Amino acid sequence: MELSPKTARQIFEDVKANPARARFGFGRKAVLINIDVQCAYTQPAEFKTAYETDPRQIEHINRLARGFRARQWPVVWTFVAYMDSGEDAGVWGTRTDTPDSLQNIKHGSRRATFDPRAEVQQGVDVVYNKRMASAFFETALQSLLVWHQVDTVIITGGSTSGCVRATTVDSLMRGYRTIVPEECVADKHESYHFANLTDMALKYADVLAVDEVFRWVEADVESERKGESGSAAVAAATSTPA
Amino acid sequence: MELSPKTARQIFEDVKANPARARFGFGRKAVLINIDVQCAYTQPAEFKTAYETDPRQIEHINRLARGFRARQWPVVWTFVAYMDSGEDAGVWGTRTDTPDSLQNIKHGSRRATFDPRAEVQQGVDVVYNKRMASAFFETALQSLLVWHQVDTVIITGGSTSGCVRATTVDSLMRGYRTIVPEECVADKHESYHFANLTDMALKYADVLAVDEVFRWVEADVESERKGESGSAAVAAATSTPA
Amino acid sequence: MELSPKTARQIFEDVKANPARARFGFGRKAVLINIDVQCAYTQPAEFKTAYETDPRQIEHINRLARGFRARQWPVVWTFVAYMDSGEDAGVWGTRTDTPDSLQNIKHGSRRATFDPRAEVQQGVDVVYNKRMASAFFETALQSLLVWHQVDTVIITGGSTSGCVRATTVDSLMRGYRTIVPEECVADKHESYHFANLTDMALKYADVLAVDEVFRWVEADVESERKGESGSAAVAAATSTPA
Amino acid sequence: MELSPKTARQIFEDVKANPARARFGFGRKAVLINIDVQCAYTQPAEFKTAYETDPRQIEHINRLARGFRARQWPVVWTFVAYMDSGEDAGVWGTRTDTPDSLQNIKHGSRRATFDPRAEVQQGVDVVYNKRMASAFFETALQSLLVWHQVDTVIITGGSTSGCVRATTVDSLMRGYRTIVPEECVADKHESYHFANLTDMALKYADVLAVDEVFRWVEADVESERKGESGSAAVAAATSTPA
Repeated sequence: MELSPKTARQIFEDVKANPARARFGFGRKAVLINIDVQCAYTQPAEFKTAYETDPRQIEHINRLARGFRARQWPVVWTFVAYMDSGEDAGVWGTRTDTPDSLQNIKHGSRRATFDPRAEVQQGVDVVYNKRMASAFFETALQSLLVWHQVDTVIITGGSTSGCVRATTVDSLMRGYRTIVPEECVADKHESYHFANLTDMALKYADVLAVDEVFRWVEADVESERKGESGSAAVAAATSTPA
Repeated sequence: MELSPKTARQIFEDVKANPARARFGFGRKAVLINIDVQCAYTQPAEFKTAYETDPRQIEHINRLARGFRARQWPVVWTFVAYMDSGEDAGVWGTRTDTPDSLQNIKHGSRRATFDPRAEVQQGVDVVYNKRMASAFFETALQSLLVWHQVDTVIITGGSTSGCVRATTVDSLMRGYRTIVPEECVADKHESYHFANLTDMALKYADVLAVDEVFRWVEADVESERKGESGSAAVAAATSTPA
Repeated sequence: MELSPKTARQIFEDVKANPARARFGFGRKAVLINIDVQCAYTQPAEFKTAYETDPRQIEHINRLARGFRARQWPVVWTFVAYMDSGEDAGVWGTRTDTPDSLQNIKHGSRRATFDPRAEVQQGVDVVYNKRMASAFFETALQSLLVWHQVDTVIITGGSTSGCVRATTVDSLMRGYRTIVPEECVADKHESYHFANLTDMALKYADVLAVDEVFRWVEADVESERKGESGSAAVAAATSTPA
Repeated sequence: MELSPKTARQIFEDVKANPARARFGFGRKAVLINIDVQCAYTQPAEFKTAYETDPRQIEHINRLARGFRARQWPVVWTFVAYMDSGEDAGVWGTRTDTPDSLQNIKHGSRRATFDPRAEVQQGVDVVYNKRMASAFFETALQSLLVWHQVDTVIITGGSTSGCVRATTVDSLMRGYRTIVPEECVADKHESYHFANLTDMALKYADVLAVDEVFRWVEADVESERKGESGSAAVAAATSTPA
């Protein structure tokens, strides 16, 4: 095992500084999955379970969502909330029992409510109540992606070391090109945040600047109709199976 | 987001130094899942994808396996290996194409072979060829655990930041008490190793000294028959649903 | 292929007349899954998609539910309902587009509402909005069953040839003893109903008279505490793995 | 519930006689899944678990497989086989224990071997050892289909009332256009066979003459490259989401 005196932040900076790293690449059509952008995690003034990493995180997510809707690509928002009994939190809800405990995020509560800054289009966007870490776990997400025939998954929200990481691993395992716009994910501690960005970048996903993702999503709709969308077309040509 | 000059190793040491952390606890019956104890990952002299963390790792895993078999609890070993086409590695097999690339671990090759030190009892233990990170993903593991009515999952192998982490998250999500014996998991870099031990300990699992796991597994078989196995009975009494 | 002039009803009567058929047997603890007991399927006076088989079906389901709650065993109710776009019905919602079409069962509509005779205890029982045939498909049912450590699944509702059959197959595949109380399932056509009762009885489940299920569920709670519940204990002794 | 003196065969003939039934339709790209074409089920002279429906069944399957390979579309074959302990058959292996019992189809045995007439291209085609009814259940099939970006699933093999039916339901639930070529599926009893063809045709799949499937699969490769493949293009135009 390699030893190192570097912090997780320094190690991620080293990873980013390697411009030659091979990419999974953009594909042909994507889904946007915004994970748990809900007050329990986004309102530090109210809840000690909340955190802020990039102050423009939700603004970026909203812009991505507008771009996706313009292309008629699916936009998904998840949130966690549990039954009064907490039995749907399973073993995850057994270690503590305080107002801040996971299983005590109840349906209809402030903790369970989407952050007011998040532009969730109820009835148009897809909304899932997930109970566990991954947005794929025991939700209808997989069949939605098959039906929409997407090949690329863009993941935002929080936390980087929790639900974002779990969803990223699941997305890659299920066969999707997976992209994490760095400014769009957040965590409560820098070490957790950067260590997981490193793991995702090395193993499971392209961790990109959100500006690059904007350029892809917001590419000329006309060119998209012809199946030629810049770097996406190149990537598809090189690594999609016949 | 909290800032910190500490390394991932230091942060994990802080977590371990907190003896009051609530546990998920041992349950009533467990499965042992030994992940990818195969030459590609365990023979550093042969393969640059291999690594060693605790030199006694495989010895500990073998002792756990003997204890499980003595109690007629299931022992599972996973390995990765792919078709010649690599299509079963999906998008995961697209970033590089060298002899060390994931999708080039071929069936029957040295890379795919269990480490000779690992005491795999073919035909008695359960062996799965997994293709992705989690041992639960697209294998028969979930239904095996239902049929054996286990409530606890013990996870060993490697890498800590890859397949061990992914399996741990899946195990917790699926409702199992999940335990990672620290000396039984390994990684190629200390920062990845310790960062993931921290994530698992804080969110998904009990990260324990292997000696404590030995004591539970090797408890008097007679007491186990009566459904009273020390700390397990206590844990079950406090947090299992009615 | 064996030829036969018999109807599906006659064939099922032959199956029932064989009292020596081996059973999967009751286990130790069960879940009750009541499938789609909602007006679109239970109110023939209102909807042409509805049907009635045994007029006491819902009365029986309610009695089972009371028995389960008395033992603190989980009671699950599912219903189907879709987004305005119908995209969550996927390819299933593409063949017709009338008020009676599946994808047009909308959230909050009369079609999506539980039958008023069904005693659903909101907030106590578990309620899932499923989109597809099986109650296990993309719902949180699997992890709920792990957490409650059930080994037996009792399935009611409709239709016998649709969602009941699909849930029964999924339950058996996942490792559960699966029981269908005959009077508690319904279909729109006798041939579909009886053909599927035959398939389930021969391959996947015990199709039993509801009275026998009542006797098991309503067995003395005291005897249940001792782990001895009549035929259940016998069945468990003969076929549960160590 | 509608009553009827008709046999399952007569009812399926009524369904087929309705040429106006709406279809799911062919999509853009398909997978061929050949289910359990293994001696235990295809050699009636050897095993009483075997059956023959259309004597040209395997010939048709081989022709479909050649067509798929010519288009570089994936060809999948499944078989069932179990550990000596039979624990991987779970509760399904508990009702009988004879040489013909499901759990006694052992790895490497004649029962587990593909029928010698089936042209399985080992190393090129994808082969899964499934343990349960559905080819999707706990195999790597779902991620394979995502990676190949197929939208259509063609299912053959047996039995119609068992593994074919289970796979068909899973395929539809997961969002795929699902097609069952009638001459390519088989069962041991006509009532089971026709009852399940009816259920599939009414609820989950297009049950088509194999000649129509040949025409689609074997369409000019050139036209396929342009994304225009006859009825497929028409179907796609009418019901695929944007």
